[in-house]
Amino acid sequence: MISVSILGAGNVATHLFKVFSKTKTISVKQWYNRDISKISSFQNEVSITDKLSELTEADLYLIAISDDAISDISEALPFENRLVAHTSGSVSIYDLDKKNRRGVFYPLQTFSKAAELDFKNVPICIETIGKKDYPLLKSLAEAIGSDHYKVNSDQRKALHLAAVFVNNFTNQLYRIAHEITEAEGVEFDILKPLILETAKKVQNISPFLAQTGPAKRNDKKTIKRHLDQLENEEHKAIYNLMTNAIKKTHGK
Amino acid sequence: MISVSILGAGNVATHLFKVFSKTKTISVKQWYNRDISKISSFQNEVSITDKLSELTEADLYLIAISDDAISDISEALPFENRLVAHTSGSVSIYDLDKKNRRGVFYPLQTFSKAAELDFKNVPICIETIGKKDYPLLKSLAEAIGSDHYKVNSDQRKALHLAAVFVNNFTNQLYRIAHEITEAEGVEFDILKPLILETAKKVQNISPFLAQTGPAKRNDKKTIKRHLDQLENEEHKAIYNLMTNAIKKTHGK
Repeated sequence: MISVSILGAGNVATHLFKVFSKTKTISVKQWYNRDISKISSFQNEVSITDKLSELTEADLYLIAISDDAISDISEALPFENRLVAHTSGSVSIYDLDKKNRRGVFYPLQTFSKAAELDFKNVPICIETIGKKDYPLLKSLAEAIGSDHYKVNSDQRKALHLAAVFVNNFTNQLYRIAHEITEAEGVEFDILKPLILETAKKVQNISPFLAQTGPAKRNDKKTIKRHLDQLENEEHKAIYNLMTNAIKKTHGK
Repeated sequence: MISVSILGAGNVATHLFKVFSKTKTISVKQWYNRDISKISSFQNEVSITDKLSELTEADLYLIAISDDAISDISEALPFENRLVAHTSGSVSIYDLDKKNRRGVFYPLQTFSKAAELDFKNVPICIETIGKKDYPLLKSLAEAIGSDHYKVNSDQRKALHLAAVFVNNFTNQLYRIAHEITEAEGVEFDILKPLILETAKKVQNISPFLAQTGPAKRNDKKTIKRHLDQLENEEHKAIYNLMTNAIKKTHGK
Protein backbone atom coordinates (compact mmCIF):
# COMPACT_ATOMS: atom_id res chain seq x y z
CA MET A 1 0.00 0.00 0.00
CA ILE A 2 1.32 3.42 -0.99
CA SER A 3 0.13 6.28 1.19
CA VAL A 4 -0.15 9.61 -0.60
CA SER A 5 -1.11 13.05 0.61
CA ILE A 6 -2.26 15.49 -2.05
CA LEU A 7 -1.61 19.24 -1.91
CA GLY A 8 -3.79 21.43 -4.11
CA ALA A 9 -7.36 21.41 -5.38
CA GLY A 10 -7.15 22.11 -9.10
CA ASN A 11 -8.08 19.81 -11.97
CA VAL A 12 -4.94 17.67 -11.74
CA ALA A 13 -5.22 17.27 -7.95
CA THR A 14 -8.90 16.37 -8.20
CA HIS A 15 -8.45 13.85 -11.03
CA LEU A 16 -5.55 12.25 -9.17
CA PHE A 17 -7.54 12.06 -5.94
CA LYS A 18 -10.38 10.33 -7.76
CA VAL A 19 -8.23 7.80 -9.56
CA PHE A 20 -6.07 7.07 -6.51
CA SER A 21 -9.22 6.44 -4.46
CA LYS A 22 -10.37 3.83 -6.94
CA THR A 23 -7.21 1.70 -6.65
CA LYS A 24 -6.54 -0.97 -4.07
CA THR A 25 -2.85 -0.16 -3.76
CA ILE A 26 -2.95 3.58 -3.14
CA SER A 27 -4.43 5.14 -0.04
CA VAL A 28 -4.93 8.89 0.01
CA LYS A 29 -3.97 9.81 3.55
CA GLN A 30 -4.74 13.52 3.56
CA TRP A 31 -5.83 16.21 1.17
CA TYR A 32 -4.49 19.70 1.84
CA ASN A 33 -5.65 22.94 0.32
CA ARG A 34 -5.04 26.51 1.46
CA ASP A 35 -8.70 27.26 0.83
CA ILE A 36 -10.42 24.29 2.44
CA SER A 37 -13.83 25.12 0.98
CA LYS A 38 -12.64 23.83 -2.38
CA ILE A 39 -12.20 20.28 -1.05
CA SER A 40 -14.78 20.23 1.72
CA SER A 41 -17.20 18.25 -0.46
CA PHE A 42 -14.73 15.35 -0.17
CA GLN A 43 -14.52 15.38 3.64
CA ASN A 44 -16.44 12.12 4.00
CA GLU A 45 -14.00 10.34 1.68
CA VAL A 46 -10.66 11.63 2.95
CA SER A 47 -9.11 13.58 5.79
CA ILE A 48 -8.90 17.18 4.63
CA THR A 49 -6.90 20.08 6.06
CA ASP A 50 -5.85 23.64 5.33
CA LYS A 51 -2.82 23.53 7.64
CA LEU A 52 0.55 22.20 6.51
CA SER A 53 1.36 21.63 10.20
CA GLU A 54 -1.37 18.99 10.32
CA LEU A 55 0.21 16.82 7.61
CA THR A 56 1.08 13.42 9.04
CA GLU A 57 3.56 10.86 7.72
CA ALA A 58 2.97 9.52 4.19
CA ASP A 59 5.06 7.74 1.56
CA LEU A 60 4.57 10.62 -0.82
CA TYR A 61 3.42 14.23 -0.79
CA LEU A 62 2.15 15.19 -4.20
CA ILE A 63 2.13 18.93 -4.92
CA ALA A 64 -0.44 19.71 -7.62
CA ILE A 65 -0.71 23.49 -7.40
CA SER A 66 0.09 26.39 -9.73
CA ASP A 67 3.70 26.49 -10.95
CA ASP A 68 4.55 29.75 -9.21
CA ALA A 69 3.63 28.45 -5.76
CA ILE A 70 5.43 25.09 -5.85
CA SER A 71 8.76 26.36 -4.56
CA ASP A 72 7.23 28.25 -1.62
CA ILE A 73 4.99 25.43 -0.45
CA SER A 74 7.85 22.94 -0.62
CA GLU A 75 9.86 25.26 1.66
CA ALA A 76 6.95 25.60 4.05
CA LEU A 77 6.54 21.86 4.59
CA PRO A 78 7.19 21.18 8.31
CA PHE A 79 9.15 17.94 7.82
CA GLU A 80 12.34 16.63 6.25
CA ASN A 81 13.72 13.69 4.31
CA ARG A 82 10.34 12.56 3.02
CA LEU A 83 9.43 12.08 -0.66
CA VAL A 84 7.88 15.20 -2.17
CA ALA A 85 6.94 15.37 -5.87
CA HIS A 86 5.26 18.02 -7.96
CA THR A 87 3.06 17.40 -11.02
CA SER A 88 4.17 20.33 -13.20
CA GLY A 89 5.45 20.09 -16.76
CA SER A 90 7.68 23.11 -16.55
CA VAL A 91 8.94 23.52 -12.99
CA SER A 92 12.45 22.19 -12.33
CA ILE A 93 12.86 19.37 -9.83
CA TYR A 94 15.40 21.63 -8.12
CA ASP A 95 12.70 24.17 -7.34
CA LEU A 96 11.55 21.78 -4.64
CA ASP A 97 13.22 22.47 -1.28
CA LYS A 98 16.15 20.14 -0.81
CA LYS A 99 15.28 19.33 2.80
CA ASN A 100 13.06 16.58 1.37
CA ARG A 101 13.65 13.84 -1.21
CA ARG A 102 12.50 15.24 -4.53
CA GLY A 103 10.57 13.93 -7.49
CA VAL A 104 8.30 14.83 -10.39
CA PHE A 105 5.12 13.01 -11.39
CA TYR A 106 3.91 14.84 -14.48
CA PRO A 107 0.75 13.55 -16.15
CA LEU A 108 0.89 14.72 -19.76
CA GLN A 109 -2.74 15.18 -20.70
CA THR A 110 -5.40 17.87 -20.93
CA PHE A 111 -7.48 17.97 -17.78
CA SER A 112 -10.87 19.54 -17.67
CA LYS A 113 -13.11 19.57 -14.66
CA ALA A 114 -16.13 17.95 -16.23
CA ALA A 115 -14.73 15.21 -18.43
CA GLU A 116 -13.96 11.83 -16.87
CA LEU A 117 -10.40 10.82 -17.64
CA ASP A 118 -9.16 7.28 -18.19
CA PHE A 119 -5.61 7.23 -16.85
CA LYS A 120 -4.74 4.54 -19.39
CA ASN A 121 -4.57 7.49 -21.75
CA VAL A 122 -2.44 9.64 -19.45
CA PRO A 123 1.29 9.01 -19.79
CA ILE A 124 3.21 9.91 -16.64
CA CYS A 125 6.66 11.49 -16.90
CA ILE A 126 8.71 10.56 -13.86
CA GLU A 127 11.87 12.13 -12.50
CA THR A 128 13.59 11.69 -9.15
CA ILE A 129 16.88 12.95 -7.76
CA GLY A 130 17.46 9.85 -5.64
CA LYS A 131 17.48 6.63 -7.66
CA LYS A 132 15.80 4.75 -4.81
CA ASP A 133 12.76 7.04 -5.00
CA TYR A 134 12.02 6.13 -8.62
CA PRO A 135 10.28 2.78 -7.97
CA LEU A 136 7.61 4.33 -5.75
CA LEU A 137 6.55 6.86 -8.40
CA LYS A 138 6.68 4.12 -10.99
CA SER A 139 4.39 1.92 -8.86
CA LEU A 140 2.03 4.85 -8.45
CA ALA A 141 1.75 5.23 -12.24
CA GLU A 142 1.25 1.51 -12.67
CA ALA A 143 -1.44 1.42 -9.98
CA ILE A 144 -3.57 3.89 -11.97
CA GLY A 145 -2.94 2.06 -15.25
CA SER A 146 -0.80 4.77 -16.83
CA ASP A 147 2.15 4.34 -19.14
CA HIS A 148 5.21 5.87 -17.54
CA TYR A 149 8.42 7.32 -18.90
CA LYS A 150 11.70 8.32 -17.27
CA VAL A 151 12.11 11.92 -18.38
CA ASN A 152 14.69 14.44 -17.17
CA SER A 153 13.90 18.12 -16.53
CA ASP A 154 15.03 19.33 -19.98
CA GLN A 155 13.04 16.60 -21.69
CA ARG A 156 9.98 17.37 -19.58
CA LYS A 157 10.23 21.03 -20.52
CA ALA A 158 10.46 20.07 -24.19
CA LEU A 159 7.34 17.90 -23.79
CA HIS A 160 5.49 20.71 -22.03
CA LEU A 161 6.34 23.08 -24.89
CA ALA A 162 5.47 20.49 -27.54
CA ALA A 163 2.17 19.88 -25.74
CA VAL A 164 1.25 23.55 -26.27
CA PHE A 165 1.68 23.02 -30.02
CA VAL A 166 -0.37 19.80 -30.24
CA ASN A 167 -3.02 20.85 -27.75
CA ASN A 168 -3.52 24.63 -27.37
CA PHE A 169 -2.40 25.65 -30.86
CA THR A 170 -4.19 22.76 -32.54
CA ASN A 171 -7.33 23.66 -30.65
CA GLN A 172 -6.99 27.25 -31.90
CA LEU A 173 -6.82 25.91 -35.47
CA TYR A 174 -10.10 24.12 -34.74
CA ARG A 175 -11.45 27.43 -33.49
CA ILE A 176 -10.43 29.22 -36.68
CA ALA A 177 -12.07 26.46 -38.72
CA HIS A 178 -15.19 27.02 -36.63
CA GLU A 179 -15.10 30.74 -37.49
CA ILE A 180 -14.57 30.05 -41.20
CA THR A 181 -17.49 27.61 -41.43
CA GLU A 182 -19.80 29.70 -39.27
CA ALA A 183 -19.21 32.74 -41.49
CA GLU A 184 -20.72 30.74 -44.39
CA GLY A 185 -23.49 29.28 -42.26
CA VAL A 186 -22.22 25.74 -42.65
CA GLU A 187 -22.00 23.23 -39.82
CA PHE A 188 -18.65 22.80 -38.03
CA ASP A 189 -19.86 19.24 -37.33
CA ILE A 190 -18.90 18.26 -40.88
CA LEU A 191 -15.23 18.76 -39.92
CA LYS A 192 -15.31 16.62 -36.78
CA PRO A 193 -14.55 13.26 -38.42
CA LEU A 194 -11.58 14.85 -40.22
CA ILE A 195 -10.29 16.31 -36.93
CA LEU A 196 -10.42 12.87 -35.35
CA GLU A 197 -8.88 11.09 -38.33
CA THR A 198 -5.99 13.59 -38.45
CA ALA A 199 -5.19 12.82 -34.81
CA LYS A 200 -5.58 9.06 -35.32
CA LYS A 201 -3.30 8.99 -38.34
CA VAL A 202 -0.21 10.06 -36.38
CA GLN A 203 -0.80 7.36 -33.78
CA ASN A 204 0.70 4.94 -36.32
CA ILE A 205 2.71 6.94 -38.84
CA SER A 206 4.93 9.98 -38.35
CA PRO A 207 3.49 13.47 -38.89
CA PHE A 208 6.01 13.85 -41.70
CA LEU A 209 4.58 10.88 -43.59
CA ALA A 210 0.99 11.81 -42.68
CA GLN A 211 1.14 15.21 -44.38
CA THR A 212 -1.07 15.90 -47.43
CA GLY A 213 -2.67 18.98 -48.99
CA PRO A 214 -1.94 22.02 -51.13
CA ALA A 215 1.11 23.22 -49.15
CA LYS A 216 2.86 19.85 -49.36
CA ARG A 217 2.11 19.64 -53.09
CA ASN A 218 3.03 23.32 -53.49
CA ASP A 219 -0.29 23.73 -55.31
CA LYS A 220 0.01 27.48 -55.90
CA LYS A 221 -3.44 27.92 -57.43
CA THR A 222 -5.25 26.44 -54.44
CA ILE A 223 -3.05 28.34 -51.98
CA LYS A 224 -3.79 31.61 -53.77
CA ARG A 225 -7.52 30.88 -53.83
CA HIS A 226 -7.51 30.07 -50.12
CA LEU A 227 -5.68 33.31 -49.31
CA ASP A 228 -8.19 35.26 -51.38
CA GLN A 229 -11.02 33.61 -49.44
CA LEU A 230 -9.60 34.57 -46.04
CA GLU A 231 -10.80 37.98 -44.91
CA ASN A 232 -9.37 37.95 -41.40
CA GLU A 233 -5.76 39.20 -41.49
CA GLU A 234 -4.71 36.99 -38.60
CA HIS A 235 -6.11 33.90 -40.31
CA LYS A 236 -4.23 34.92 -43.45
CA ALA A 237 -0.97 35.28 -41.50
CA ILE A 238 -1.43 31.84 -39.94
CA TYR A 239 -2.25 30.35 -43.34
CA ASN A 240 0.95 31.82 -44.81
CA LEU A 241 3.20 30.81 -41.94
CA MET A 242 1.91 27.25 -41.71
CA THR A 243 1.97 26.82 -45.48
CA ASN A 244 5.59 27.96 -45.62
CA ALA A 245 6.50 25.68 -42.72
CA ILE A 246 4.98 22.68 -44.53
CA LYS A 247 6.72 23.62 -47.78
CA LYS A 248 10.06 23.87 -46.01
CA THR A 249 9.55 20.56 -44.17
CA HIS A 250 8.78 18.85 -47.47
CA GLY A 251 11.48 20.57 -49.49
CA LYS A 252 9.26 22.68 -51.74
CA MET B 1 -29.83 -0.20 -57.94
CA ILE B 2 -27.75 2.88 -58.74
CA SER B 3 -25.30 2.45 -61.61
CA VAL B 4 -22.16 4.57 -61.32
CA SER B 5 -19.17 5.00 -63.58
CA ILE B 6 -16.03 6.35 -61.98
CA LEU B 7 -13.55 8.64 -63.75
CA GLY B 8 -10.08 8.89 -62.23
CA ALA B 9 -7.70 6.61 -60.36
CA GLY B 10 -6.45 8.61 -57.37
CA ASN B 11 -7.08 7.93 -53.69
CA VAL B 12 -10.65 9.23 -53.69
CA ALA B 13 -11.60 7.30 -56.83
CA THR B 14 -10.07 4.09 -55.48
CA HIS B 15 -11.67 4.36 -52.03
CA LEU B 16 -15.04 5.11 -53.64
CA PHE B 17 -14.71 2.17 -56.03
CA LYS B 18 -13.97 -0.15 -53.12
CA VAL B 19 -16.82 1.03 -50.92
CA PHE B 20 -19.33 1.12 -53.80
CA SER B 21 -18.38 -2.45 -54.70
CA LYS B 22 -19.20 -3.62 -51.20
CA THR B 23 -22.77 -2.31 -51.25
CA LYS B 24 -25.80 -4.11 -52.60
CA THR B 25 -27.45 -0.99 -53.97
CA ILE B 26 -24.63 0.49 -56.03
CA SER B 27 -23.21 -1.16 -59.11
CA VAL B 28 -20.02 0.25 -60.58
CA LYS B 29 -20.65 0.04 -64.27
CA GLN B 30 -17.30 1.22 -65.65
CA TRP B 31 -14.06 2.65 -64.40
CA TYR B 32 -12.31 5.10 -66.69
CA ASN B 33 -8.78 6.38 -66.40
CA ARG B 34 -6.62 8.12 -69.01
CA ASP B 35 -3.71 5.89 -67.99
CA ILE B 36 -5.34 2.47 -67.88
CA SER B 37 -2.36 0.81 -66.19
CA LYS B 38 -3.36 2.46 -62.90
CA ILE B 39 -6.64 0.56 -62.76
CA SER B 40 -5.74 -2.58 -64.66
CA SER B 41 -5.38 -4.54 -61.42
CA PHE B 42 -9.16 -4.14 -61.00
CA GLN B 43 -10.10 -5.49 -64.44
CA ASN B 44 -11.56 -8.69 -63.05
CA GLU B 45 -13.87 -6.74 -60.77
CA VAL B 46 -15.12 -4.04 -63.11
CA SER B 47 -15.17 -3.05 -66.75
CA ILE B 48 -12.25 -0.66 -67.24
CA THR B 49 -11.50 1.72 -70.08
CA ASP B 50 -9.20 4.55 -71.12
CA LYS B 51 -11.57 5.91 -73.76
CA LEU B 52 -14.37 8.35 -72.92
CA SER B 53 -16.08 7.20 -76.12
CA GLU B 54 -16.54 3.76 -74.58
CA LEU B 55 -18.57 5.04 -71.62
CA THR B 56 -22.03 3.49 -71.68
CA GLU B 57 -25.19 4.71 -70.00
CA ALA B 58 -25.11 5.02 -66.19
CA ASP B 59 -27.17 6.84 -63.56
CA LEU B 60 -24.13 8.81 -62.49
CA TYR B 61 -20.66 9.66 -63.79
CA LEU B 62 -18.42 10.51 -60.87
CA ILE B 63 -15.35 12.58 -61.74
CA ALA B 64 -12.64 12.07 -59.12
CA ILE B 65 -9.60 13.58 -60.79
CA SER B 66 -7.32 16.55 -60.07
CA ASP B 67 -9.10 19.89 -59.76
CA ASP B 68 -7.47 21.42 -62.82
CA ALA B 69 -8.67 18.69 -65.16
CA ILE B 70 -12.33 18.51 -64.11
CA SER B 71 -13.61 21.19 -66.46
CA ASP B 72 -11.87 19.72 -69.52
CA ILE B 73 -12.98 16.16 -68.94
CA SER B 74 -16.57 17.26 -68.40
CA GLU B 75 -16.46 19.01 -71.77
CA ALA B 76 -14.98 15.95 -73.44
CA LEU B 77 -17.77 13.62 -72.28
CA PRO B 78 -19.49 12.30 -75.45
CA PHE B 79 -23.04 12.43 -74.12
CA GLU B 80 -25.62 14.91 -72.87
CA ASN B 81 -28.30 15.34 -70.24
CA ARG B 82 -26.90 12.68 -67.92
CA LEU B 83 -25.92 13.25 -64.26
CA VAL B 84 -22.25 14.15 -63.86
CA ALA B 85 -20.76 14.99 -60.45
CA HIS B 86 -17.25 15.81 -59.32
CA THR B 87 -15.75 15.04 -55.88
CA SER B 88 -13.69 18.18 -55.35
CA GLY B 89 -13.84 20.49 -52.36
CA SER B 90 -12.88 23.61 -54.24
CA VAL B 91 -14.09 23.36 -57.84
CA SER B 92 -17.35 25.15 -58.61
CA ILE B 93 -20.31 23.12 -59.77
CA TYR B 94 -20.44 25.51 -62.75
CA ASP B 95 -17.03 24.30 -63.93
CA LEU B 96 -18.80 21.17 -65.11
CA ASP B 97 -19.98 21.44 -68.71
CA LYS B 98 -23.64 22.42 -68.81
CA LYS B 99 -24.52 19.90 -71.50
CA ASN B 100 -25.02 17.42 -68.66
CA ARG B 101 -26.96 17.59 -65.36
CA ARG B 102 -24.45 18.69 -62.75
CA GLY B 103 -23.68 17.76 -59.16
CA VAL B 104 -21.00 17.61 -56.49
CA PHE B 105 -20.32 14.65 -54.20
CA TYR B 106 -17.48 15.84 -51.95
CA PRO B 107 -16.27 13.42 -49.28
CA LEU B 108 -14.67 15.55 -46.58
CA GLN B 109 -11.95 13.34 -45.15
CA THR B 110 -8.23 12.67 -45.47
CA PHE B 111 -7.59 9.84 -47.90
CA SER B 112 -4.37 7.91 -47.93
CA LYS B 113 -3.68 4.98 -50.16
CA ALA B 114 -2.82 2.46 -47.49
CA ALA B 115 -5.30 3.11 -44.71
CA GLU B 116 -8.71 1.45 -44.90
CA LEU B 117 -11.44 4.02 -44.54
CA ASP B 118 -14.78 3.53 -42.86
CA PHE B 119 -17.24 5.69 -44.77
CA LYS B 120 -19.28 6.08 -41.59
CA ASN B 121 -16.58 8.63 -40.73
CA VAL B 122 -16.68 10.39 -44.09
CA PRO B 123 -19.31 13.12 -44.32
CA ILE B 124 -20.42 13.79 -47.89
CA CYS B 125 -21.20 17.33 -49.01
CA ILE B 126 -23.79 17.24 -51.76
CA GLU B 127 -24.76 19.91 -54.26
CA THR B 128 -26.85 19.70 -57.42
CA ILE B 129 -28.12 22.28 -59.87
CA GLY B 130 -31.31 20.39 -60.58
CA LYS B 131 -33.41 19.66 -57.51
CA LYS B 132 -34.48 16.32 -58.92
CA ASP B 133 -30.85 15.12 -59.04
CA TYR B 134 -30.33 15.57 -55.32
CA PRO B 135 -32.05 12.33 -54.17
CA LEU B 136 -29.72 10.12 -56.21
CA LEU B 137 -26.57 11.60 -54.67
CA LYS B 138 -28.20 11.39 -51.26
CA SER B 139 -29.03 7.71 -51.80
CA LEU B 140 -25.43 7.13 -52.85
CA ALA B 141 -24.14 8.61 -49.59
CA GLU B 142 -26.65 6.60 -47.58
CA ALA B 143 -25.70 3.38 -49.37
CA ILE B 144 -22.10 3.71 -48.18
CA GLY B 145 -23.16 4.64 -44.63
CA SER B 146 -22.01 8.26 -44.78
CA ASP B 147 -23.59 11.27 -43.18
CA HIS B 148 -24.56 13.75 -45.86
CA TYR B 149 -25.06 17.48 -45.92
CA LYS B 150 -26.58 19.85 -48.44
CA VAL B 151 -23.80 22.35 -49.01
CA ASN B 152 -23.64 25.08 -51.65
CA SER B 153 -20.46 26.00 -53.55
CA ASP B 154 -19.44 28.85 -51.22
CA GLN B 155 -20.01 26.68 -48.16
CA ARG B 156 -18.05 23.82 -49.71
CA LYS B 157 -15.14 26.16 -50.42
CA ALA B 158 -15.25 27.36 -46.80
CA LEU B 159 -15.16 23.73 -45.63
CA HIS B 160 -12.26 22.94 -47.94
CA LEU B 161 -10.31 25.89 -46.54
CA ALA B 162 -11.24 25.04 -42.95
CA ALA B 163 -10.12 21.45 -43.61
CA VAL B 164 -6.64 22.73 -44.43
CA PHE B 165 -6.51 24.31 -40.97
CA VAL B 166 -7.73 21.26 -39.04
CA ASN B 167 -5.87 18.71 -41.11
CA ASN B 168 -2.72 19.99 -42.86
CA PHE B 169 -1.85 22.77 -40.41
CA THR B 170 -2.67 20.66 -37.38
CA ASN B 171 -0.52 17.89 -38.76
CA GLN B 172 2.33 20.39 -39.16
CA LEU B 173 1.95 21.33 -35.49
CA TYR B 174 2.34 17.61 -34.71
CA ARG B 175 5.46 17.65 -36.89
CA ILE B 176 6.91 20.61 -34.97
CA ALA B 177 6.18 18.83 -31.69
CA HIS B 178 8.03 15.84 -33.12
CA GLU B 179 11.03 18.06 -33.87
CA ILE B 180 10.97 19.63 -30.40
CA THR B 181 10.86 16.29 -28.59
CA GLU B 182 13.40 14.63 -30.87
CA ALA B 183 15.89 17.45 -30.25
CA GLU B 184 15.84 16.49 -26.55
CA GLY B 185 15.91 12.76 -27.23
CA VAL B 186 12.48 12.20 -25.74
CA GLU B 187 9.81 10.02 -27.31
CA PHE B 188 7.10 11.67 -29.44
CA ASP B 189 4.92 8.72 -28.36
CA ILE B 190 4.33 10.43 -25.03
CA LEU B 191 2.33 13.13 -26.85
CA LYS B 192 0.06 10.76 -28.77
CA PRO B 193 -2.67 10.39 -26.12
CA LEU B 194 -2.81 14.20 -25.78
CA ILE B 195 -3.13 14.57 -29.57
CA LEU B 196 -6.06 12.17 -29.57
CA GLU B 197 -7.74 13.71 -26.51
CA THR B 198 -7.48 17.20 -28.03
CA ALA B 199 -9.34 15.98 -31.12
CA LYS B 200 -11.90 14.06 -29.06
CA LYS B 201 -12.65 17.03 -26.84
CA VAL B 202 -14.08 19.15 -29.67
CA GLN B 203 -16.39 16.34 -30.77
CA ASN B 204 -18.60 17.35 -27.84
CA ILE B 205 -17.72 20.89 -26.83
CA SER B 206 -16.80 23.89 -28.97
CA PRO B 207 -13.11 24.68 -29.59
CA PHE B 208 -13.72 27.95 -27.76
CA LEU B 209 -14.77 26.16 -24.58
CA ALA B 210 -12.12 23.46 -25.00
CA GLN B 211 -9.19 25.91 -24.90
CA THR B 212 -6.71 25.76 -22.00
CA GLY B 213 -3.04 26.64 -21.51
CA PRO B 214 -0.67 29.57 -20.98
CA ALA B 215 -1.97 31.71 -23.87
CA LYS B 216 -5.58 31.50 -22.72
CA ARG B 217 -4.52 32.33 -19.13
CA ASN B 218 -2.13 34.99 -20.46
CA ASP B 219 0.55 33.36 -18.29
CA LYS B 220 3.41 35.64 -19.33
CA LYS B 221 6.14 33.78 -17.42
CA THR B 222 5.43 30.46 -19.13
CA ILE B 223 5.06 32.11 -22.54
CA LYS B 224 8.42 33.83 -22.12
CA ARG B 225 10.09 30.61 -20.99
CA HIS B 226 8.67 28.73 -23.97
CA LEU B 227 9.93 31.39 -26.38
CA ASP B 228 13.38 31.21 -24.78
CA GLN B 229 13.36 27.45 -25.24
CA LEU B 230 12.55 27.64 -28.96
CA GLU B 231 15.67 27.92 -31.09
CA ASN B 232 14.04 27.58 -34.51
CA GLU B 233 12.89 31.03 -35.69
CA GLU B 234 9.95 29.60 -37.60
CA HIS B 235 8.73 27.70 -34.53
CA LYS B 236 9.07 30.93 -32.54
CA ALA B 237 7.01 32.85 -35.12
CA ILE B 238 4.28 30.18 -35.03
CA TYR B 239 4.33 30.20 -31.22
CA ASN B 240 3.88 34.00 -31.17
CA LEU B 241 1.17 34.09 -33.81
CA MET B 242 -0.88 31.26 -32.29
CA THR B 243 -0.46 32.62 -28.77
CA ASN B 244 -1.69 36.05 -29.88
CA ALA B 245 -4.61 34.47 -31.74
CA ILE B 246 -5.65 32.59 -28.59
CA LYS B 247 -5.28 35.69 -26.43
CA LYS B 248 -7.44 37.69 -28.82
CA THR B 249 -10.09 34.96 -29.00
CA HIS B 250 -10.28 34.84 -25.22
CA GLY B 251 -10.13 38.62 -24.70
CA LYS B 252 -6.70 38.81 -23.06
